[in-house]
Amino acid sequence: MATDQVPPIADELPTPLPETAPARVEDDGVHADDSGYRQPEVDVDALRALLDGRYREVRDLVRDNLTQHAQILLDQEQMSTADFRERVRDVVVMMAETGQTGMGFPEEYGGGGDIGASIAAFETLALGDLSVLVKVGVQFGLFGGAILQLGTRHHHDAHLADLVTGRTMGCFAMTESGHGSNVQALGTVATYDAEAQEFVITTPDDASRKDYIGNAAAHAELAVVFAQLEVGGERHGVHAFVVPVREDGRVLDGVRIEDCGPKMGLNGVDNGRIWFDHVRVPRTALLNQFAEVTPEGRYLSPIDNPNKRFFTMLGTLVQGRVCVGGAGINAAKVALTIATRYAVRRRQFEATSPDEEQVLLDYGMHQRRLLPLLARTYALHFAQEVVAGQLHEVFSGPGPIEPGSDEHARRMLESRAAGTKALGTWHATRTIQECREACGGAGYLSENRFAALKADTDVFTTFEGDNHVLLQLVAKGLLTDYAGEFEDMDQLGMARFVAGLAVETVVERTAVHKLVQSVRDLLPGGDTWDQEAGLLDPNYQLAMLRFREEHMIGGVARRLKRGIDQGDNPGAVFSRVQDHVIAAARAHTERLVLEAFVQKTAALPDGDLKVALNLLCDLHALSTIEADRAWFMEHGRLSSARSKAISREINALCRRLRPIAVELVDAFGVPEEMLRSPELLGWPIGSDD
Amino acid sequence: MATDQVPPIADELPTPLPETAPARVEDDGVHADDSGYRQPEVDVDALRALLDGRYREVRDLVRDNLTQHAQILLDQEQMSTADFRERVRDVVVMMAETGQTGMGFPEEYGGGGDIGASIAAFETLALGDLSVLVKVGVQFGLFGGAILQLGTRHHHDAHLADLVTGRTMGCFAMTESGHGSNVQALGTVATYDAEAQEFVITTPDDASRKDYIGNAAAHAELAVVFAQLEVGGERHGVHAFVVPVREDGRVLDGVRIEDCGPKMGLNGVDNGRIWFDHVRVPRTALLNQFAEVTPEGRYLSPIDNPNKRFFTMLGTLVQGRVCVGGAGINAAKVALTIATRYAVRRRQFEATSPDEEQVLLDYGMHQRRLLPLLARTYALHFAQEVVAGQLHEVFSGPGPIEPGSDEHARRMLESRAAGTKALGTWHATRTIQECREACGGAGYLSENRFAALKADTDVFTTFEGDNHVLLQLVAKGLLTDYAGEFEDMDQLGMARFVAGLAVETVVERTAVHKLVQSVRDLLPGGDTWDQEAGLLDPNYQLAMLRFREEHMIGGVARRLKRGIDQGDNPGAVFSRVQDHVIAAARAHTERLVLEAFVQKTAALPDGDLKVALNLLCDLHALSTIEADRAWFMEHGRLSSARSKAISREINALCRRLRPIAVELVDAFGVPEEMLRSPELLGWPIGSDD
Repeated sequence: MATDQVPPIADELPTPLPETAPARVEDDGVHADDSGYRQPEVDVDALRALLDGRYREVRDLVRDNLTQHAQILLDQEQMSTADFRERVRDVVVMMAETGQTGMGFPEEYGGGGDIGASIAAFETLALGDLSVLVKVGVQFGLFGGAILQLGTRHHHDAHLADLVTGRTMGCFAMTESGHGSNVQALGTVATYDAEAQEFVITTPDDASRKDYIGNAAAHAELAVVFAQLEVGGERHGVHAFVVPVREDGRVLDGVRIEDCGPKMGLNGVDNGRIWFDHVRVPRTALLNQFAEVTPEGRYLSPIDNPNKRFFTMLGTLVQGRVCVGGAGINAAKVALTIATRYAVRRRQFEATSPDEEQVLLDYGMHQRRLLPLLARTYALHFAQEVVAGQLHEVFSGPGPIEPGSDEHARRMLESRAAGTKALGTWHATRTIQECREACGGAGYLSENRFAALKADTDVFTTFEGDNHVLLQLVAKGLLTDYAGEFEDMDQLGMARFVAGLAVETVVERTAVHKLVQSVRDLLPGGDTWDQEAGLLDPNYQLAMLRFREEHMIGGVARRLKRGIDQGDNPGAVFSRVQDHVIAAARAHTERLVLEAFVQKTAALPDGDLKVALNLLCDLHALSTIEADRAWFMEHGRLSSARSKAISREINALCRRLRPIAVELVDAFGVPEEMLRSPELLGWPIGSDD
Repeated sequence: MATDQVPPIADELPTPLPETAPARVEDDGVHADDSGYRQPEVDVDALRALLDGRYREVRDLVRDNLTQHAQILLDQEQMSTADFRERVRDVVVMMAETGQTGMGFPEEYGGGGDIGASIAAFETLALGDLSVLVKVGVQFGLFGGAILQLGTRHHHDAHLADLVTGRTMGCFAMTESGHGSNVQALGTVATYDAEAQEFVITTPDDASRKDYIGNAAAHAELAVVFAQLEVGGERHGVHAFVVPVREDGRVLDGVRIEDCGPKMGLNGVDNGRIWFDHVRVPRTALLNQFAEVTPEGRYLSPIDNPNKRFFTMLGTLVQGRVCVGGAGINAAKVALTIATRYAVRRRQFEATSPDEEQVLLDYGMHQRRLLPLLARTYALHFAQEVVAGQLHEVFSGPGPIEPGSDEHARRMLESRAAGTKALGTWHATRTIQECREACGGAGYLSENRFAALKADTDVFTTFEGDNHVLLQLVAKGLLTDYAGEFEDMDQLGMARFVAGLAVETVVERTAVHKLVQSVRDLLPGGDTWDQEAGLLDPNYQLAMLRFREEHMIGGVARRLKRGIDQGDNPGAVFSRVQDHVIAAARAHTERLVLEAFVQKTAALPDGDLKVALNLLCDLHALSTIEADRAWFMEHGRLSSARSKAISREINALCRRLRPIAVELVDAFGVPEEMLRSPELLGWPIGSDD
């Protein structure tokens, strides 16, 4: 366990629950029948089909590609950085040939015309080497996505066909050293020279150099550069431009590129820093989906408010966040597959018999370490399926996203993508760490996969938006009901807005009697719903998470309002409640995740698969409540006795999941070649083998 | 935050606490005086002197050595594994020349004759490259320590002088592939051949190969090999032998050594696997401090019981655990120094002013992320000082530890070392991760130090004993009152003993009325002590942790007793309560840590230093209670209102610590060269610089 918190314990002896325990009263009828609980058998293929969903074929294509290029896991360890970068590029291009990486682009440019398929492909790619994944993300997601979403026909015709095959490599030059997550404040300038009908791109100082730019240090020929647009002495905010940076391997005049050097992981990706010294590009280099500069130097945009324009542009790039979240979840699956298979083979100590050491996964503690993480991986998988599906819907219109088209739905999608990305990537970091530790010293050897998994995924929590910044975005959406005004504002203006007017509505909405009402809709019963419902009733579990979410949002709103009413600086007030803001956003996203899992499970036909998924769903729900049981007790929604009962129930669920744990990880469909781990899985270990 | 738990929040607006807040009623008088609270100023040198303690000179010697060899931080990144291993070896030998690494050996062999000094030196070494640290640990701690503690004059004369200088390199061949933490079950055999007066060392199968052995793959000429001793067909348990494995760089006949290959980190250490095929060593190769085989083949030992003999031998090696714990704590200091300095330079978002972005550490959330970890680092530092001091006392007798000499004290020391090692290394993993994330993308670059810190320290949680296994050791000590019988038993026998007879005493001792009594001794007052005491009263804080500890131990004891009384398999009962066992051990160690911090602080003369340390001590104590506030509520020792008040108090303490945060990390005395991080600390960053 990587935290210092003392794990929750059930301090009364539970009614002994044998492997095949009789049904308990609070069972919801799914797990049990009249003759008692029956341990489900898991059909691995059927479960895998359920997980793969509508994109099974796409995922299998990626699995095949991963298997074919499995050597890259060794190359990562053995090659020099320079060689490995070339190798990663080659693998990416070979994968592109199979159609795997271009699924999100229009068919007329050689793409697959299916955004959902492109997300599924990307997620699955995270089962393999993650430099390949990130290189694909940079080239096809960030660079290609910007051309597609921010550009128009001219740019599509010029670039899409070549970038889809990987013939043209590009980079996405947004982040600057001095500005990090605050993209609106970036310093690179693009000044329009009406006479020459050109933009002049300049890096005014070192804080404004582009930094950590993937594909920049070695391979990119083109860059999509984000810069402050200046026309006739007037600033119009951040816009994107296509800027050539390299030709035949040579960096072009006026462009300076520096290698970021070795990184913790992902060393197959060539990250670099870029400076521009009065680099001239034609007027048509502006990606002009949302704004245009006429030849004579008039600035035109269908979106008047510069903040709104900025956020609309950024919003089209939401796919990157969805992809990173999915990648984190899939990387966690690799770690869990290895650790679970190890835990049923490895024996340690003669715990119950003098003649035989006990298998790790038969230890209660080991079950507690791995199985709730397994359950949460399933939950996040299904939550990811929902957000990917929504993205597919929103972005599969007739053409690129038009300004104004169903803004509310888009904002909700952005918020959901942000929340899922934060939870998915934190989950990856935590799960990989726990699995590494659960494999002991062997987990430390590079050949056993955890070294690369840990090092490569570590940055997921901070890229495509720092998780804390993303959760603040989620909270702001909640506090403003995704109001349009929200996007028209800069950071401080937004704080003022949220803390002022918008909060009134939220305060009203989250009044206690309304909270109770909203719970009643879910869970018929008296005011003591939280005492009476069965712990395994999904409506109870959801009601708990919904109550927490609403209560927290209401609490933030009231604290903001009080601060403003006292005349404090709105920004200062917002900053003071920042921990609360982030907690509310997490609580919101946790509710969405559980909802996705509950709905998925409820829709299944009766049978062993449903029973197994119900066990996982219950374990996930109760683990989530248990992790924050202090809050529920503090807010009168959980008695001490019930809190302890939840911990006991979790232990019981772990014991029931123990016999099917291996099938549950095998259903993730991680190709054997991606597991490596000869030490952990490859030969008999433990003294009795 | 690397966990998925929603952070605790205080959902009522606190009375605004300005930077210089007036004294609050619950203040204990230390922080406040009649004229109101005054922000302390921190004299960095004085605080550093306090932290360095009696071994300031030793620590400064190590700091100088680190600075002199600072280039190794770059070498780690740039050299091939083979070259880097040689480089690390060279640095270790150069450091040895300064006396730094030999402080724990007798002066007659060139050592310093001061065990406390050797621990201080080792801890401080953790501020630099950790391959150097671990190589030092292997050579002087494990290998040298085994020769010193398990050997006698003959072995000392033969080896100590050469190993102290690093002229002879050695390894410590204990761990086997198939047995991990269960050393008693290892499979390597040493059979006595009375005719030849030799031992024959053999690896019977692959599960019994020695594995992960530091110094084995390239440098060791000698190995201390742990093997099952067999004399005249009779087994006598695990014993240690000095076995030559390499001469002039060539592996000797009968010995097979394989390189473990690349690892997540610590690649400057040459870990290997060793097989022995009937390797013959003279009778005198047995390290015979605790057992002897006569020439004619009689086995003699002053300790009759083989389990007791085994644990006595192992107990002499406790220094390794103390050192690893201290190393973890010091590695965390490096991460905190970088992240804190970065947090006062880096600006992000115009949070409170339209003209200026806000410094990271002025965000409430950022304070919450870093400052409790800073406080805990101080707490663990002082707890480590206590355990290192105790070790120095116990081991600074006239000669090597004699069997039977104050066994109770030694067992308590072993337990305390195990607990501190577990908490210290988990703290390192967590702190380094949090600090990395708090430095955003820049934290991901290798030159910014976190990559190596993370990768190198990751294994600390599983080496020198997996943390979970160590905490079980702690719990067993608590459950048996460190009774002598405890060490005479194997794993299963111990479970039987604990679960049976010993538990009665604990059950009796922890009866509720006695718990209340023990609290009363600490905290005069009625039965509602937990409601009435001030949150900042250290007696209250300690009483809470003591109550939890005793209650948990009692709970484990009662559950064990009930299981046994029902006739269940003692091992199975023990396994069933394993999470509870580990929680009790953590709770125990947490209490020891806080006690150390409180005592240290209380002993200081009045003044700003004391005020500052009191702020840290309060923050650590309340954060510890907050982290487990669910348990306290479940057990009736924390009301909802008071729980929320604790969260608010933590926020207030963070605000008070904010202005002195940099001084508090600077007092750790991490040499500037060890920080590297040019990106984070080296040049103006943020848009306003």
